[in-house]
Amino acid sequence: MKPTEMAKEGAEMTEETEHMIEKNGAKETENVVSAGDAKEMRAVILSGFGGLNKLRVTKKAMPEPQEGEVKIRVKACGLNFLDLMVRQGNIDNPPKTPLVPGFECSGIVEAMGENTKGFEIGDRVMAFVNYNAWAEVVCTPLDYVYNMPDDMTFPEAAAFSMNFVAAYMMLFEVANLREGMSVLVHSAGGGVGQAVAQLCSTIPSVTVFGTASSFKHEAIKDSVTHLFDRNVDYVQEVKKISPEGVDIVLDCLCGENTGKGLGLLRPLGTYILYGSSNMVTGETKSFFSLAKSWWQVEKVNPIKLYEENKVIAGFSLLNLLFKQGRCGQVKTVVEKLFSLYNQKKIKPVVDSLWALEEVKEAMQRIHDRGNIGKLILDVEKSPTPLMASDSTETSEAGEEEEEHEGDNDNKERMPFIQ
Amino acid sequence: MKPTEMAKEGAEMTEETEHMIEKNGAKETENVVSAGDAKEMRAVILSGFGGLNKLRVTKKAMPEPQEGEVKIRVKACGLNFLDLMVRQGNIDNPPKTPLVPGFECSGIVEAMGENTKGFEIGDRVMAFVNYNAWAEVVCTPLDYVYNMPDDMTFPEAAAFSMNFVAAYMMLFEVANLREGMSVLVHSAGGGVGQAVAQLCSTIPSVTVFGTASSFKHEAIKDSVTHLFDRNVDYVQEVKKISPEGVDIVLDCLCGENTGKGLGLLRPLGTYILYGSSNMVTGETKSFFSLAKSWWQVEKVNPIKLYEENKVIAGFSLLNLLFKQGRCGQVKTVVEKLFSLYNQKKIKPVVDSLWALEEVKEAMQRIHDRGNIGKLILDVEKSPTPLMASDSTETSEAGEEEEEHEGDNDNKERMPFIQ
Repeated sequence: MKPTEMAKEGAEMTEETEHMIEKNGAKETENVVSAGDAKEMRAVILSGFGGLNKLRVTKKAMPEPQEGEVKIRVKACGLNFLDLMVRQGNIDNPPKTPLVPGFECSGIVEAMGENTKGFEIGDRVMAFVNYNAWAEVVCTPLDYVYNMPDDMTFPEAAAFSMNFVAAYMMLFEVANLREGMSVLVHSAGGGVGQAVAQLCSTIPSVTVFGTASSFKHEAIKDSVTHLFDRNVDYVQEVKKISPEGVDIVLDCLCGENTGKGLGLLRPLGTYILYGSSNMVTGETKSFFSLAKSWWQVEKVNPIKLYEENKVIAGFSLLNLLFKQGRCGQVKTVVEKLFSLYNQKKIKPVVDSLWALEEVKEAMQRIHDRGNIGKLILDVEKSPTPLMASDSTETSEAGEEEEEHEGDNDNKERMPFIQ
Repeated sequence: MKPTEMAKEGAEMTEETEHMIEKNGAKETENVVSAGDAKEMRAVILSGFGGLNKLRVTKKAMPEPQEGEVKIRVKACGLNFLDLMVRQGNIDNPPKTPLVPGFECSGIVEAMGENTKGFEIGDRVMAFVNYNAWAEVVCTPLDYVYNMPDDMTFPEAAAFSMNFVAAYMMLFEVANLREGMSVLVHSAGGGVGQAVAQLCSTIPSVTVFGTASSFKHEAIKDSVTHLFDRNVDYVQEVKKISPEGVDIVLDCLCGENTGKGLGLLRPLGTYILYGSSNMVTGETKSFFSLAKSWWQVEKVNPIKLYEENKVIAGFSLLNLLFKQGRCGQVKTVVEKLFSLYNQKKIKPVVDSLWALEEVKEAMQRIHDRGNIGKLILDVEKSPTPLMASDSTETSEAGEEEEEHEGDNDNKERMPFIQ
C-alpha cells in the first residue's frame, strides 16, 4: 500500500469502524451451531487491512468441497504472529479483503469432493488452509489434510501443524541438527520456540539458547538450556557461555538480528530467517516499519560466507505449501512428527483457548508476547462475557500510534488458560 | 596489492625474472634424492606474486618436526586452481613471499616431533599442509595427517584429500543430499567436479547436471547425467530438462553465476560458493579482475531467501582447516571417504603427473582447463627434457595481457597422462 492510500484509509476509519463492529456475535453462535444442514456458518472476517477493529465475526455462505477437497467441521484453529501481519497487510503480495484469516485448523471430516480419497466422514483431521481457517467449516485440498493421532486433542492438533512442521524442517532439512550441536532461538516461549526446544531434546547433547520475556522464564526454563531476557544483548550472553558461537540460529525478528545471528555462527553454522516480527511496531502497519525492514536488513556477500564457512537460509512454510507445491515433502515430515508425538517425545504447548468472538483479545495477547505456547481459537467456546467498557472500542484510540499495543491496558476479557 | 605497487612490479619484472629462473633444476634432483640424511631438500618456491616466472625449484633447509608434528617424505602433491590464485596473490590476506605453495600431499612418515602419537615411521599417509606441500619433505601437525588405505596409490591420495573432502562436506554437511535430488556442478571434469559426480552416484536416483569444455565430454559422460558445454547458457539448458530447477548448485566461478545459481534452485535448495575462479582472467592478477569480482557478486537479501525458501552457503576447506580449527570434523569425513574408497564406490581421477620442475606447465594446464581430474606433482619424477626454446621464456611476453593463458601455444613439455 502506498503512503497516500494509507492516509486516505486513516481518514475514513472512524465511520468504517462503526459500521463493521458487530456486538451480537455471541447470539449468532447459538443459531448456527444448532443447525446441522445450515446454509451459513460463522467465520472471522478481516474487512480491510489495519487495526483490531478490522476483525469481526459474521455469517458466511457454507463452503462446499470442490474436486479433491475435504470439508472439515472445524474444532480448533491456530493463531500465529503471521496472522497479525496479515491483518496489517504487512506481507508480500497481500490478498484482497474482505477475507477470512487463518492457515491451520483441526476438526472432523464432514464431506469430500469428487476424487478425494484417503479420508472418511468422521475422521479426526489436522489441516493447512490457504486462508479461511478461522471459521466453523473449511474446505481444503486433500494434500493439506492429515489424520490425527488418536491421543491428540483438537487444540493440540491446531497448535501442532505450523509450528512443529516449521521447526522440524528448519532443524533437520534446512540445517542438519546432529548430536552435540547448539541452537539459538528467539521467542523461546512462543509456539515455534517451544516446538524447537522439544525437537532439540530428541537429539542427544543439543544445547538450546533462547530469548524470552523474563516473566516466562520460570515456565519454560526446563525446555531451554540457557535463557536470556529478550531485552538483553543476547550476542554478549551467548558468547560468554560459548565463545565460539552456535551451530544454528533461528530468527523470526529480522532487521539487525540478521547480522547479529550471522556473527554468532560457528564455522559451517546455519542462520535461518523464518519471520520478521520486528516489522510489527504498532497496531497498524506503518510506512516507517515497512521501510525500516527492507533497508535495515543487511544484505549478505556470498564471498564473506565463503571465507567464513557460513550458511544463510530463509524458511516460509506457507510459501512452501501454497506457492511452491511441496505438500509431499511436508506430508513426510508430518508423519515423522506424529510418530514422535505417539512416542511421547513431543507435545504441543497450548497457551490459551479463545472463542472466535475473542479473536481481538487473542491477537492483542500474541502482539504483547504474553503467550507461552500457542493461542488457539476454540470454535465451540462461548466468549467470556464482556465487561462494561467494550475493549474493541477502546482499542481504536491509538490506532496510528507506534507501540500502542505494547501494554495490556485494553484487555478486558481474560483468556481461558489451560 | 595496490595498483601503484603492481605497476612498479611490472617495471622490475624482466630483470627479476632472469635472476630467478634456474635452468639446472633437473640436475639438482639427483643429488638430493641420493642423500639420505641430507641437510637440504628440493622445493618449489614462489618468489613473489605474479606470473609463472615467479615459480622455480630450489634447495631449502630440511624441515624438522616440532612438537605434535609429523615429518613426511613426500611422494605426490595435489595442484589446485587455488594454487594458481595464490601465485597471483589473488586471495584474501595473502601470506608473505617467498613461500613454498601447496596444501596437500601424500608420502611416508620419516620422523615425528615430541608428543606425536598415532603414527609410526614408514606409515603411508595423506596430509593437509598450510602451504609448503610442494617439496620433498614437509612437516605438519598430526591432526592433518591420515593413514592411507592399503590399496590407494600416492598420486591417488594426493588427488583425494582436498577434492573429496570438499565435495563430501558440501553435499552431505552443508547441503543435505538425499535420494532423488539433483545437483549442478561447474567444471565437472575437474578434480572437485569428478569427486562430486562420484559421491552423487553413491546415493540412489541423484541427477547430476555438469558444465565442462566440450572436448572433455566423451571422457566424463558416464559420470554426469546431463553435460553442457561451459560456454552455453546453462540456466536455459537446465530449465529445458528440469523446469523446476535443481536442489543443489555448487559454484566455483562466482560473479554473475551466484545470481544464476540462486535462480536455478528449487524450494529448499542450497547454493554453495566454493571458489571464485572467474577472478582469474590472465596470468597475473589484474586490478580489473579483482574489482570485478567484488562488485559483480550479487549481494543477497535474506528476506528474498525467506520468500523463496532458499539457502546460500560458502565453503572453504582451507579456512575450515587452518583458520577455524575444524580438524576433528574433517577427520570424521576422511574416515567415511576412505570407507567408500575401500568399498570401491569412489576412486580419484588423476589427470597427469608432473615433476616439480614442470610446475609451470602443470599450472598452465589447469589455467587452460585442459585437465580431466587432478594434476599431481610427482616428486620422484624427472622432468621431460625441454625442447629448443624454453617455454618459461616465451611465457613472459604477454605477462600483463588479459586472457594470455587462454591458449596452449607455450606448452612445450608434454605431461605424462595416465
